[in-house]
Amino acid sequence: MPEADNRAVVDLLGVLAYAELTAFDRLAEDARLAPTLDGRASLARMAAAEIGHHGRLHERLVEHGADPSEAMAPFVRALDAFHEGTRPSTWLEGLVKAYVGDGLATDFYREIAAFLPPPDRDLVLEVLADTGHADFAVREVRAAITRDRRLAGRLSLWGRRLVGEAISQSQAVIAEHDRLAALIVVGTGDLAGVGRLIERITAAHTDRMKTLGLNP
Amino acid sequence: MPEADNRAVVDLLGVLAYAELTAFDRLAEDARLAPTLDGRASLARMAAAEIGHHGRLHERLVEHGADPSEAMAPFVRALDAFHEGTRPSTWLEGLVKAYVGDGLATDFYREIAAFLPPPDRDLVLEVLADTGHADFAVREVRAAITRDRRLAGRLSLWGRRLVGEAISQSQAVIAEHDRLAALIVVGTGDLAGVGRLIERITAAHTDRMKTLGLNP
Repeated sequence: MPEADNRAVVDLLGVLAYAELTAFDRLAEDARLAPTLDGRASLARMAAAEIGHHGRLHERLVEHGADPSEAMAPFVRALDAFHEGTRPSTWLEGLVKAYVGDGLATDFYREIAAFLPPPDRDLVLEVLADTGHADFAVREVRAAITRDRRLAGRLSLWGRRLVGEAISQSQAVIAEHDRLAALIVVGTGDLAGVGRLIERITAAHTDRMKTLGLNP
Repeated sequence: MPEADNRAVVDLLGVLAYAELTAFDRLAEDARLAPTLDGRASLARMAAAEIGHHGRLHERLVEHGADPSEAMAPFVRALDAFHEGTRPSTWLEGLVKAYVGDGLATDFYREIAAFLPPPDRDLVLEVLADTGHADFAVREVRAAITRDRRLAGRLSLWGRRLVGEAISQSQAVIAEHDRLAALIVVGTGDLAGVGRLIERITAAHTDRMKTLGLNP
């Protein structure tokens, strides 16, 4: 595999660092929708885990000689637009977003991490590791659907909206960042490789929707 | 010193656990007012530290055989009222609240912790330890006042409002919780002891306002 361009690595760590910061924000906001103090604390803990990851990426950017704020800046608009466009209006929508949205993002970053040199690859895989909170979202959403079947239809639509927004924002990010695009195309080998990458991510998304008891 | 009533210990750990949960919320909300990505990440890290403390208190409540949500419930109204009544409208107000408000609360809980048996006392002192973030607030507020002197007057008023709200809500909490009131009176020895406790807390508050460059 050809050595990844150092600036492409900084781009990837930058987008990921900002993604963790917005994930913190969003989880903290959704925590306030929790119907119980336990649920609120669970989401707050997920948020805290994200900011811990942000800190690790921040340090690594500094080691690369990059200014972390500058590395994050080019991605602020697209990620904010994603979150603005998918603001949950209920506790359950927030949980579906935490599970399905983060799952999508994690798969995407994990695929790209495979093209990085070992120290950066290991760091990215580490900050993407599930902190066990996915189980919480799955349990809560499944229990709610069992109590009220009509929720399944509404939350399935919501899941499809999340994936639509995620695709459109990722395309915008990649179209504007040639180095990231090159990293993906070179890493996957060719455009057919990119196609297979998208297929893997889509299949995993379908599995997650089913795990929640929703129609993909 | 007489052994503290176990239920009073649960009360204190309960109010503190809920205080950490609301501190998380509030810091996470204020992070969004940050003028820079660095400032936003700093406040998010403070929020994460609070939720870590919440987790420690949660565990200890379980060890005491208490249900953490039930232990927190009696204090939800007063603490929410404090935060509703002191919602910062600017980034600097948020920082003054983080420094002055948390300082007041910390001093108060630390005084009461002295009356607890060692394992609980040590835990409370540990979760109250400053995570180094106070320096950040002091630096930002002092720099802002140097740039614009008029801010000092406005932020001084804000500091006085914080202390007024804090006193009125603490009185409400103590008046409604006989075991906590007894813990404080027995611990300080008598009402004169309570008076000296309040004096120490007030003196420390005055010092903090001066540290920020504000009129107490």
